[in-house]
Amino acid sequence: MSKSKVNSEAGTEADPGVDAGVGAGVGVGVAAGSEVGAAEWSGRDLHLELAGTGSRRAGLIRAIREAIRTGRLAPDTPLPPYRSLAADLGIARNTVADAYAELVAEGWLTARQGSGTRVARRAAPVAAPRPRTPARRAAGPVYDLRQGQPDAASFPRAAWVASARRALTAAPSEAFGPGDPRGRPELRVALTEYLARVRGVRTHPDRIVVCSGYAHALRLLFGGGVLRGPAAVESYGLAFHRSILATASIRTLPLAVDEHGADPGESTALSGARVALLTPAHQFPTGVPLAPERRVTALDWARARGGIVVEDDYDGEFRYDRRPVGAVQGMDPDRVVYIDSVSKSLSPAIRLGWMVLPDHLVEDVLTAKGLREAWAGVTDQLTLADFIEGGHYDRHIRRMRQRYRARRDHLVTALAEHVPEATATGIAAGLHAVLRLPAGTEAKSVEAAKREGLALDALSTFRHPDAAGAAEDGLVVGYATPPDHAYPAALAALCRALRAALDG
Amino acid sequence: MSKSKVNSEAGTEADPGVDAGVGAGVGVGVAAGSEVGAAEWSGRDLHLELAGTGSRRAGLIRAIREAIRTGRLAPDTPLPPYRSLAADLGIARNTVADAYAELVAEGWLTARQGSGTRVARRAAPVAAPRPRTPARRAAGPVYDLRQGQPDAASFPRAAWVASARRALTAAPSEAFGPGDPRGRPELRVALTEYLARVRGVRTHPDRIVVCSGYAHALRLLFGGGVLRGPAAVESYGLAFHRSILATASIRTLPLAVDEHGADPGESTALSGARVALLTPAHQFPTGVPLAPERRVTALDWARARGGIVVEDDYDGEFRYDRRPVGAVQGMDPDRVVYIDSVSKSLSPAIRLGWMVLPDHLVEDVLTAKGLREAWAGVTDQLTLADFIEGGHYDRHIRRMRQRYRARRDHLVTALAEHVPEATATGIAAGLHAVLRLPAGTEAKSVEAAKREGLALDALSTFRHPDAAGAAEDGLVVGYATPPDHAYPAALAALCRALRAALDG
Repeated sequence: MSKSKVNSEAGTEADPGVDAGVGAGVGVGVAAGSEVGAAEWSGRDLHLELAGTGSRRAGLIRAIREAIRTGRLAPDTPLPPYRSLAADLGIARNTVADAYAELVAEGWLTARQGSGTRVARRAAPVAAPRPRTPARRAAGPVYDLRQGQPDAASFPRAAWVASARRALTAAPSEAFGPGDPRGRPELRVALTEYLARVRGVRTHPDRIVVCSGYAHALRLLFGGGVLRGPAAVESYGLAFHRSILATASIRTLPLAVDEHGADPGESTALSGARVALLTPAHQFPTGVPLAPERRVTALDWARARGGIVVEDDYDGEFRYDRRPVGAVQGMDPDRVVYIDSVSKSLSPAIRLGWMVLPDHLVEDVLTAKGLREAWAGVTDQLTLADFIEGGHYDRHIRRMRQRYRARRDHLVTALAEHVPEATATGIAAGLHAVLRLPAGTEAKSVEAAKREGLALDALSTFRHPDAAGAAEDGLVVGYATPPDHAYPAALAALCRALRAALDG
Repeated sequence: MSKSKVNSEAGTEADPGVDAGVGAGVGVGVAAGSEVGAAEWSGRDLHLELAGTGSRRAGLIRAIREAIRTGRLAPDTPLPPYRSLAADLGIARNTVADAYAELVAEGWLTARQGSGTRVARRAAPVAAPRPRTPARRAAGPVYDLRQGQPDAASFPRAAWVASARRALTAAPSEAFGPGDPRGRPELRVALTEYLARVRGVRTHPDRIVVCSGYAHALRLLFGGGVLRGPAAVESYGLAFHRSILATASIRTLPLAVDEHGADPGESTALSGARVALLTPAHQFPTGVPLAPERRVTALDWARARGGIVVEDDYDGEFRYDRRPVGAVQGMDPDRVVYIDSVSKSLSPAIRLGWMVLPDHLVEDVLTAKGLREAWAGVTDQLTLADFIEGGHYDRHIRRMRQRYRARRDHLVTALAEHVPEATATGIAAGLHAVLRLPAGTEAKSVEAAKREGLALDALSTFRHPDAAGAAEDGLVVGYATPPDHAYPAALAALCRALRAALDG
């Protein structure tokens, strides 16, 4: 460590101005030795901490900035001529000149002929950024039984990385350019084959537009003016999705939901709508598949009225007790917008979804998306294409299906034993069950669950505010999220909570 | 290949209904032999193509669907009892039963007690999706000299994949869960250090919010109601960015741009604004750095009026002839929203950007982003964190800086030799230059360039419609996009085009 005293009043040397090019560009962060020094001038002790990574020049710049920020170097204070500072710190004169020039360019210092270099008048001290004051948060739940999240610990890291390596190695250079706003062709080709095989979707890669998930798709379709309201929606669904429609000024009309799914026939909602949003494979959250005749009724309506069915196939692959029900899209590709994503099948951390569109909507969706808005990252798109084509996606889903089915069985068994009043419904598929409760017990069940450290949602929170008929009591219980080791304890806590609520 | 004749009128067997669970879930796409068969009944030849991948059941379902779609099986046609079809095709009876059940559930077939299984009345034939009719497009340019795209061929694939492998292996399980809407902590920590070291940004990981790029940031800030207008903008800039503000109903007031950058002092625009959008390191597209006293004026305004400076640091790292100018943010972290991305430094295909925010705006930005809208993929975030911390990001930028500088020098030399009337300006940094042209020659220069197969933009296309003063003639020439081998030819074409336009 070297110490130096510098007389700052001798600033007579002309300083380099903003454009005084001092040598050709040098790499940022080129490693060089670090040093610690102290400069004192005008009778004030000024400790310049030149420590840290990077070049001497960078260290000096940081040290002077810091001294100004903290107020140790007050506005208008003259700095030593760089010749003297260089000598005192034992560094090259050019290094000091260069550091001053940068600080002048940044507005920290001013350099005027005749008066030397000074701290800029407006470079007032500013408090250093600290960690944000955290927003007041309740202590988190011990067990997360909210619906919608797959088991994060099961993400197939090794297979994903292997696909990434293969895909990124094989990709053409243009993959790293601005790209096609529809998404990578490799992925759209893989999806065309996969969706046909597994979900009965009929399409062509040209009619697929990659997005980052269902919410993004809704934003593009409705916020982007591709589809107009009013929109018939299921009377039970995610409030978050309804709010996206509301933000786009789309009025929603609830379709009654019963044990055959949403009812497009008996409702007047459909006759007033221009678009119908459905979850045919597995009504969300009640869990029933849309009955065959209702599928046909919905398509009949779309054909007769020029309407569009938006098919949310959020967990179509996870069906346990019989084969997955194929997508409605396959019955009329020109009347259905099919939307799917990897949020449930792989991870919500992979922000990838896709829309399978009728031909006449593709151009509008691309316009809404915008040329520069290829939100979904290309590396993930290329990786998923390889992951699907190599059969890894099928294998992962098969593995997870077995795991989730075991969890579901565990839930059903535990309830049957300890809380026979709570009927688990909608359990043929998906990552959650709806526990039907005796009338009037929903709120206290949620309260009791909370006391047991459980996060879960009341069935009523999914209900459309304009839904007809009486709300039924229930809980929506996601069984995919807790890690394996915590699941038995989570179930035990759930049973205790329900017992307490129903007995209390 | 086996052929079979089946009498479809004997359909007396009860068919499984929608909920007739036929065995526990079997994996989708479990490989099994494929087979080809033909069934003919009711005197009609029906050729069922059971070829393809997947199980026999899947093949049969596909074949029947396809026969209905193409009209070969008309609505209301009875299907053979599955017992007979199974015998004729030499497959298990359960397989046929199962296929029928799925097709009933999907609405293709109907099953009624006493009348057997029939093609559903509404399952009318639908034309198969074909490739989209491509929108009429002009033949693409031979050379792309539009600004803003880095060299796609230089994407550091191997280093990126290596970082992905390390990062995904090391990440905790919760990384694959829903995650923090601010973005991965690993990345925010890496950025805090990197931006401080290279750009003089002062922040804390808690104040960084990851997004997918500058446009996404603008959408969150203005569309999300975090910042309000009117907004002072530079009189030259991307029309695309102005349109994002317009969509959010934000009025823009142009600040004059001269050889010292945008002028916040002499304009009345700033006094009427609540926010100022600036490109201090390298005015876009004119290429000059914001003069020191103007940086100070802008911050003075922000402090005095409670305004916010939005600092777009889109290519701050690419400075050739002297060291990069540090970010304005470092001078007042509570008054500046700093925005940066990898679109120029790495690739626009990696959809990653970040906002460095004043503490009091963080909560609002997170609200605008929404809990479920972590647009930027987590795998890329983890990978970039490793890429930065391992020094690969610095190395890549250094390598590209050398490459782009050589291209810039090549451009300047070629112009000096062949088109001395066109002055290249704004060349100290960035991935593009502005060629200043004699008055009245801009339009014909663009035309001539087009004839030479060049894509590039007239300077006037970047001008704010309300900008004061006369527009200057110029071209904005991006020199980063063409691959190395094509660059000399692209330059030659540019010189030919300009010669023709200026001589013509």
